[in-house]
Amino acid sequence: MFRPEIKVVDCTIRDGGLANDSHFTLDTVRAVYKAACEAGIDYVELGYRNSKQMFSPDKFGAWRFCDEDQLKRVVDGINPGGTRLSLMMDAHKAHAKDLLPKEKSAADMIRVATYVKDVDKAIFLANDATAKGYETTINIMAISHEGPPFLDEALQQIEEETKVKAVYIVDSFGALYSETVHFLVEKFQMHIKTKEIGAHFHNNQQLAFANTIESIVKGANFLDGTLFGLGRAAGNCPLELLLGFLKNPKFNIVPILEVIGKVIIPLREQIEWGYQIPYMLAGILDRHPQMSMQWMEGGGPKKHDYVEFYKQLTETPEQ
Amino acid sequence: MFRPEIKVVDCTIRDGGLANDSHFTLDTVRAVYKAACEAGIDYVELGYRNSKQMFSPDKFGAWRFCDEDQLKRVVDGINPGGTRLSLMMDAHKAHAKDLLPKEKSAADMIRVATYVKDVDKAIFLANDATAKGYETTINIMAISHEGPPFLDEALQQIEEETKVKAVYIVDSFGALYSETVHFLVEKFQMHIKTKEIGAHFHNNQQLAFANTIESIVKGANFLDGTLFGLGRAAGNCPLELLLGFLKNPKFNIVPILEVIGKVIIPLREQIEWGYQIPYMLAGILDRHPQMSMQWMEGGGPKKHDYVEFYKQLTETPEQ
Repeated sequence: MFRPEIKVVDCTIRDGGLANDSHFTLDTVRAVYKAACEAGIDYVELGYRNSKQMFSPDKFGAWRFCDEDQLKRVVDGINPGGTRLSLMMDAHKAHAKDLLPKEKSAADMIRVATYVKDVDKAIFLANDATAKGYETTINIMAISHEGPPFLDEALQQIEEETKVKAVYIVDSFGALYSETVHFLVEKFQMHIKTKEIGAHFHNNQQLAFANTIESIVKGANFLDGTLFGLGRAAGNCPLELLLGFLKNPKFNIVPILEVIGKVIIPLREQIEWGYQIPYMLAGILDRHPQMSMQWMEGGGPKKHDYVEFYKQLTETPEQ
Repeated sequence: MFRPEIKVVDCTIRDGGLANDSHFTLDTVRAVYKAACEAGIDYVELGYRNSKQMFSPDKFGAWRFCDEDQLKRVVDGINPGGTRLSLMMDAHKAHAKDLLPKEKSAADMIRVATYVKDVDKAIFLANDATAKGYETTINIMAISHEGPPFLDEALQQIEEETKVKAVYIVDSFGALYSETVHFLVEKFQMHIKTKEIGAHFHNNQQLAFANTIESIVKGANFLDGTLFGLGRAAGNCPLELLLGFLKNPKFNIVPILEVIGKVIIPLREQIEWGYQIPYMLAGILDRHPQMSMQWMEGGGPKKHDYVEFYKQLTETPEQ
């Protein structure tokens, strides 16, 4: 579906960083960045600009913080074409003081991820980033757990109090179906009149790509994907599928195919992601994937004792 | 979505047999059959009743033919509950003479798979099976390559000349999107007034489950799935996801989770199925997965040279 307003955001390194504590090599990040630029992807998100007080640099890799000198190493010598660089800040885990003015940064866009309860923090960070010269978005996580009146109030606040380019539906738990995607895009559109709607889906039920399509049909124009779906647990909407669907002549799928084969497939030796029954069960039950991830990390043949896992999951209250 | 008319068909062994020439052990088939019965699945399809003149029994396993004595070994001692047994016959690769009267068979339903061009053969086989006492369906394969006037004529013929219970949309190439699913269900409904619509999707673009949902929303009531999506190439709609979506109290997901963990997961040592870039490319380009399967079977690091495969696929005319 060709619609000129549509923007595609590759967040392979940022979202994938949730699966390996953001420990990608510089070569990997450069390869992903280069492929995204060559493919004509609108934005490439290389990580978080989160707080070193809240995330220990001893434990987390460079892409949790994306220091400016590190970003320079990524982009050095690569022609960005029309591709812009994005960073994410968690509303409750980032500080405005860590963001330099745009003219001193390699980044172009700041996306603030938030729960509804933290929307005031998110608005503060987004407005700070806007004032410093960045494009901005606010991404509302765990959307399947949110509803009126607080979600509606948050959307109205974002509409009235910010200059973000897009407000995102983030299906953190991979729990949405097409019906709920339609409902949520329409709800967002009731409040968000001067900004775009964004869509970020997880693949617990093999619906990340399908739900992205449904959000496009309803009018969402900011679309997230990752290479081969790389991401925490069941992963994300595969970027290559999204390009195939969009058929926008500005995109070139060949560099994407190449980097998947050469760089992403080998990562499967170190990172496990994709559809698995424990992730599926978390999605169906609209639960955070944490217990599923612990179960899978437990390893050994026991990880395929899905009946026992299902029992434990349904008997454990939500945190 | 709870709708009493909905029937779920597990075709793990039948469709999975396309990935291993129908060489499942009797223990595997019994385990799948038992789990389907315990879970309350409406139909379980154990294989083909195809011609031994067209498929050599030296090459193909028992589930390509499903001789009656073999079926008896499967069902022996297992309480079917409400679960009925289905077999598939290929319109152009099966003979009516190979089907005994229903009272001499363990099977309850015969599904005839056909291309539009073979619809007269399919109608002949379906009517023969109906006359012998079976429930029947006709499943129209390669639907993404079919259109007016021949598809419409075939549907009208099936409506007028048969007593099949359902007429299936079969997305053999995993090429459909929600928009095309909606279009096709509506087209089928224009002709098929006295029978149900069925839905069978392949997962080349990770849309098999999503498209099944879309067909349900539009009114399809016969739904195919396989355990953990087992099937040729990218596989099928995962049955466990379908049960989670349907939330019909007559289904019990626990035996399904158990058999996946104990029987299906170990099969991954012998059979490779699931999302891969060469299957995705075939889906996007609406092509038969044959070239993709050959590429993947070639093995070695070369199989991840997706740029070369893409080049070969786009330069090779369709057969």
